Parts: sequence; structure tokens; C-alpha cells
Amino acid sequence: MSVTFEYTNAMSFMKSTEMDNFSEFVKSAHNQIHGQRGPGSDYLGWVNWPIEYDREEFERVKSAASRIQQQSDALIVIGIGGSYLGSKAAIEALSHTFHNQIDGNTEVYFAGQNISSIYIENLLHVLEGKDISINVISKSGTTTEPALAFRIFREFMEKKYGEEEARKRIYVTTDKTEGALRTLATEEGYETFVIPEDIGGRYSVLTPVGLLPIAVAGLDIDQMMAGAEASYHKYNNPDIATNGSYQYAAVRNIFNSKGKSIELLVTYEPGLHYVAEWWKQLFGESEGKDVKGLFPASVNFTTDLHSMGQYVQEGRRLFIETVLQIKKSPVERTIQADANNIDGLNFLTGKTMDEVNKMAALGTTLAHIDGDVPNLLIELDELNEYTFGELVYFFEKACAISGTLLGVNPFDQPGVETYKKNMFALLGKDGYEEERKQLEERLAEITKH
Amino acid sequence: MSVTFEYTNAMSFMKSTEMDNFSEFVKSAHNQIHGQRGPGSDYLGWVNWPIEYDREEFERVKSAASRIQQQSDALIVIGIGGSYLGSKAAIEALSHTFHNQIDGNTEVYFAGQNISSIYIENLLHVLEGKDISINVISKSGTTTEPALAFRIFREFMEKKYGEEEARKRIYVTTDKTEGALRTLATEEGYETFVIPEDIGGRYSVLTPVGLLPIAVAGLDIDQMMAGAEASYHKYNNPDIATNGSYQYAAVRNIFNSKGKSIELLVTYEPGLHYVAEWWKQLFGESEGKDVKGLFPASVNFTTDLHSMGQYVQEGRRLFIETVLQIKKSPVERTIQADANNIDGLNFLTGKTMDEVNKMAALGTTLAHIDGDVPNLLIELDELNEYTFGELVYFFEKACAISGTLLGVNPFDQPGVETYKKNMFALLGKDGYEEERKQLEERLAEITKH
Repeated sequence: MSVTFEYTNAMSFMKSTEMDNFSEFVKSAHNQIHGQRGPGSDYLGWVNWPIEYDREEFERVKSAASRIQQQSDALIVIGIGGSYLGSKAAIEALSHTFHNQIDGNTEVYFAGQNISSIYIENLLHVLEGKDISINVISKSGTTTEPALAFRIFREFMEKKYGEEEARKRIYVTTDKTEGALRTLATEEGYETFVIPEDIGGRYSVLTPVGLLPIAVAGLDIDQMMAGAEASYHKYNNPDIATNGSYQYAAVRNIFNSKGKSIELLVTYEPGLHYVAEWWKQLFGESEGKDVKGLFPASVNFTTDLHSMGQYVQEGRRLFIETVLQIKKSPVERTIQADANNIDGLNFLTGKTMDEVNKMAALGTTLAHIDGDVPNLLIELDELNEYTFGELVYFFEKACAISGTLLGVNPFDQPGVETYKKNMFALLGKDGYEEERKQLEERLAEITKH
Repeated sequence: MSVTFEYTNAMSFMKSTEMDNFSEFVKSAHNQIHGQRGPGSDYLGWVNWPIEYDREEFERVKSAASRIQQQSDALIVIGIGGSYLGSKAAIEALSHTFHNQIDGNTEVYFAGQNISSIYIENLLHVLEGKDISINVISKSGTTTEPALAFRIFREFMEKKYGEEEARKRIYVTTDKTEGALRTLATEEGYETFVIPEDIGGRYSVLTPVGLLPIAVAGLDIDQMMAGAEASYHKYNNPDIATNGSYQYAAVRNIFNSKGKSIELLVTYEPGLHYVAEWWKQLFGESEGKDVKGLFPASVNFTTDLHSMGQYVQEGRRLFIETVLQIKKSPVERTIQADANNIDGLNFLTGKTMDEVNKMAALGTTLAHIDGDVPNLLIELDELNEYTFGELVYFFEKACAISGTLLGVNPFDQPGVETYKKNMFALLGKDGYEEERKQLEERLAEITKH
């Protein structure tokens, strides 16, 4: 099994020498990342993680997952951003499309990923009568969304089960030693898992952050880590000629320099929607700074060929397109002849749905090339835990190299604080009195106009 | 109840005279649309639809919906593009977040919106043991995705119920007189509803295309049409000074001219995700042609503030941002004090979740303005069927005017055919032999490299 990258269908939009010209810079970026140097070097724990992760803790994750499956009908995962998208992506991609409705599955729901009263009320409603466990995931324990959700669910659990039993149903993934959530977990005696201090949220899916919910959903996290390890070895060489992850990093920068402004991640399986969302955070948060970076967007074809297809084919030429393709569908369905052939589709008789899906993909790629959209291709042999682990590491490595080539710190996210400061000021938090005064004056000024 | 538009928070990025300078062009566009003139004038049936729709058929939609609710546990809606996104948007926005899991609800599933074997297998699995009805929606009946799904479900139904009973459970929404699906429906005696010939797919949510599934989900389509009618009257005047829909159209064009390339639709309720998807089709397919148009993208905050927030705040300055805000949440939840206040959130005690959500929105808008993102605001007083109907017509009208101002035909989608031609050729469809030969030569050439 493997992940492969190719850019054959971008070659008519660039010279082959352009790639060669990047080889030394790629080596330099590789040396920065592997040498723990360069901007953001405190956050490089993910690089060797697939071979260095804590095996004892990994076994504890599996035990906890089994316990949750036995003790509960549903797990509520409380987290946002990197503490949400990784496990959501894996579960949506690899589990049953209607996972929570299938008998025998431990249901998995997410909370604390928004501040919607509608969402939380409906979530509490659907959970009525179910036995639940909670996995709250937050480095600090003070991020507004998950902290609010945890207040609600902790109270709910303590009412439903009493304090002692609730303690056995609350699992905490947080910083090793510091922060509000660590303090609370120690006081209450919750079982805890560690968010490594040198791995940022968007790089954390292969840590307990992602692995516990993924395991509870019934997926094989041993296979996932094995895939990541394979990818670690595969993309551990600095030579752009043989390193697909680095080729992807370089080619993104090439088209960025040529003036492209959007990278469109294209999938042909609806289950990959949240893989695209995870990818958008990874690249958008890593590169979208210093007024730089390709804007990451995604479409799910063929669904969106009937909505966004027109724009991609004939709108402004803003794009490169990266197709994330699954070579072999895990299920096959053969198209049957119809006696009357009123829909005219009998020419497909004997073909599988997946063959039609693949020809739609190929036909679309060729049409978009004709429409001046350079096309990149990432192929997974199959869609399973192993290739998911491979893909995650492929993207993580590519993103680190790509951001380094772009000249940004790929591991910080300074812009995320700006709105929070305003929000805290508007909500009257202590210490934000001056900001609040300024904002109120500004709002009065706006209203006057 | 009402929908309001304002662009106060874009004024620091434009002169007020710029809006004035558009007033005559807006009048001209209005006169083209209302005078049934200009490019695409065969597809203006939606303009007067809220006051002219067929009341007899509307009552039949409601009767059919009641019958489906009585006869079945679940409705399968088979359609793609405009035959999918409108009802999906309404149901996700207005129904219970976990609609299909709530006792007493008629479940609604979608099929034929992709060619995924995984999806169809899992859908058939979750439907095991349920009584089902089908609503197949296609103007021609030959669009690949829904036609394939209908083949599968028709066979499934006839096996499960026998031909006669299956006939009573299949509802067809199609062209009034022509096409494969109309022919089949007549032969089999299915109950049918009409896709008006002068209303394109992306404008069809308020026709039986959208209304039947929406009614089956238990929503009030009388209220929805009443909202649309209110909007029809409200946006029926050519004066930009008082017509919010036209202001939105003009301001989009102003920022397009200034070099912005992406419009980001921002929501703060997760249930609005598919409203954004519907909006993306409406604007992307209407304007994305002749190498023109703002690229429509969307984010759901605060969720995506923790993934795409960094890019929007500090990445390339590609955007305008349009916030779709709900003034009053239908449910409230008050934040309780916590004795220990370990998460430091006691300053929110007594506030509602929705107040926090609103302050997050305001804080984000101000932060993004500081980050050079012009901000537009569309506010719904409440989120219900009535305001949904209002909003749909607000956007439809704005899109028609905006596309007309942009100088494109807002009602065609020529680019959607390009990939289909390739796909049919690659799949060996009769009549595509020459295209197939050319594609095979081209693919051989690509592979050689």
C-alpha cells in the first residue's frame, strides 16, 4: 500500500527545470526541519513522532477506547481546531457513512467546536437515554468553545451518574504538566493523555488527541501508526527527485510564484470531506500569514461538478487543483442492464460505479487542464487506516517544507489571537478594560455613519 | 420578520460615490430582468414565481408530503446540483441537527448526488428494515448520477414492495412534457411534479424540486412561500438606495473591480453549512464564466476561526467577507457559574451562549476589518421557514443583478458540459468515438512523459 504523488498534468504549465531549481532549497528546508532549526523549531515533535511515540501511552489509549466502548453508547469529543478536525476526518473517511445510526457501533459526537445554542440543545436531545463518556481535548483548558461545552457536559454527567461514576467516564487529553485542564484532571482523578508540548494542534492527529476518538469509533490505530511510520521513512530523504512530499511542496510554491492564489483539493468520495477540512487547517494556518500563502479550498466531485464545476472550468483562473484519489474502492457495485433503457445508460452495463467515478475524474482533469488549471494528483492505493496514516504524514511533511520555502514560520498562528482579544473585551473580561473602551468608541463611530 | 443588508463595515474600503455611480446600471439591470430581456431571458421564471406559482400543484406537494410521512419511515431524495442543494440547505438549517435520529421524524436521505459505491452501499445498509419512498428529481432523467441511483432504488423498491406498491412510493419531479423521466413516469403512473421550464436548477428551491423534500422533513412550506413573496415585493424596486438586494449586487461588483477575487460567506450556526453550499452554486455557476466572477467560498465560525481564521486574518488579501447572521437564536442557554472557575470563564456567568457567539462575530468582524477585509452583513431576524424563503429570494435577485452588472449571462452554465463530454467518451458511449480516439492519444502522450 502506498501514497503516490505526481504532477504530470501540471507540466504543460511549467518547465521541468523549475523543479530542478528548487532542489537545493528543498534540501535546505529539509535540513532545517530535521536539524530542529529555523522558525518554529520548538514545534517539530511531529517529525519523528511515528517512530518515537510513547508506546505505553498508546496501549493506554487502546485500553481506554475499549473501556469507553463497553461503558457507553456514545462518546462526546470536546475540542476545536486541531483537537477536532483530525479525528473527525479519520472517522468520516474510514467509518460507515451513517456510523452513529448503525447498531453495535459506539456513537461518536463532537461538541465544543462551536458556540451554537441550537447545536448543543439538539446534541443533548439526541443523547437522551444513552450512556455516554467524554473525551475533552484542550492544551490549556481555557479555550472558550471547548471550555463552555465541558462545563455543560460535566454538569450533565455529574447529575446523571453522580460525581464518582462521572469521573470514570471523563477522559482528558491535555498538556503534560500545565494548564487549567491538567489541574482539574489531577484534582478529580480523571484518566489523562498527553498533548506533546512540541506538537501543534494541526499536527496532532496521530497523538492521543486524534487516536482516542478514532479508536473508540472502532478503527485500527495500530495500522494508522504503521502507515505513518512507512511514510516517515519514505519522505525522510532530502532529494526532490525521489521525495513526492517535497515535490508537492515545491510545485505549490512554483504556482504560487506564478500568481495562482487558490489550491483546490478535489475528492471523489463524500467521506473525504473532512480530510479536506483537516488539510485546509494544516495548510491555511501554516502558510496564511505575512500576506502570503495559497488559499486552501475544497470541492467534492462529482457532487460539486454540478455546483462549482462551472466556475472551475470557466471562471477566473485562480487555481491549481490537487486531486486526492482512491485507486481501489473498498466496495464494488456493478451497473445492471435496464430492459427499456429510458435513461440511455445501458452503455454502462457491466461497469462498476467506481469505474464511472474514475472516468468522471479523468474526464474532469482533462477538461480542467484545457481550462488552464494545473493538476496535481495524490493517489492512495486503498482507503483504510494504514493509508490514512501515510497520507497524514505526507501532508504534514509537505506543509512544513512548503511553508519553509515560502519564507514563513509554518508552526505559529499569531492571527488567531486578534478576534479573541476583541471578543474578550466586548464580553467584559477582566484585564481588557482599555480594549473595551476603544472598541466601544469605534462601534459608536460606525453606528453614526 | 425580515432580511436586512448593510455594508457599513465596507465603507472604509470604498467611497460612497462608488455606490451612487452604480445606480443607473442597477436600474438598467433591473429593467432587463423584469422586462424579460437580456442574456438568459428564457430562464426568468423565478422572478415572479413567489406570486405566480401554481397553487393547485402546491397543495398536491403538501398532500404528497403527508402521504409519504404516513407510508414511510424515510424518503430518499434522488437529485444533484440544483435538485439537491436547495432542499438539503433548508432541511439542515431548519430541522433538528440530528433529524434522522429523532423518533417521529420522517427521515430524509439523499442519493444520486455522487457516484460513490461506498456511499450507496452504506445508504442501502442504513435503510434496511425501513419503509421508504422516493422522490427522483431530474429535468431530463438522463443525468448520470441521479439516473444511476434511480436504477438502483427502483429495482430495490420493486423487489421490496412489488411493482404495484412501488409505484405508489415513487414521486417524480421533472419537466412538464419532455424527457426520459417524464416518459417513464407516464408509463408507470408515478405521481409527478413539474420543474418549470423557465427556472434553472440553481433557482429551483421554491418549486416542487425543493418543496416536496422540505415538506416531508416536517417544515412549513406555506411560511416559506410567504417569506419569498414578502421578499419579492421588498426587492421589486429599481432604486439602489432602498433595495438591499441590489446594494449587495453592486458592492460585490465594486470589490471585484478593485481586484478582490474571493467572497467568503461566513456563518455562525453549523446548520447553515448547506445554505452556504447552495449560495456557492448560485453565485459560482451564475458568475463563474468568461474568466470572470468572485470565487465563492465559505467558512463556519467560530469552528473555522480555529482552522481558517489565521489565513483570513493574515494571509493574502484576496477577500471580501459576507456575514450571514441570525439576530435571535431560537433557543437560549445561560452560562452557569462554576465554583472553582478553573477555566476562567466565570466572567460569562449569566450571559447566554448566543451572546458569546454574537460577540465572537462582532469581534471577528472588527479584527478582519483591521486585517483589510471589507465586511458585508446579511441579517435574518430569526431562523425559520419564513426568513429562509425571504433569504432565498434576496440572494436570487442579487445574483441575477450582480451577474448582469458583471456582463455575463447569469442563467447558463456552458462549462458544465466539458467534463461530461470527456467522461462519456472515456466510458465508450455511442456517438463519442472521435472524442474517445483523441483522448486516448492524448493520454498515451501524457503517460510517455
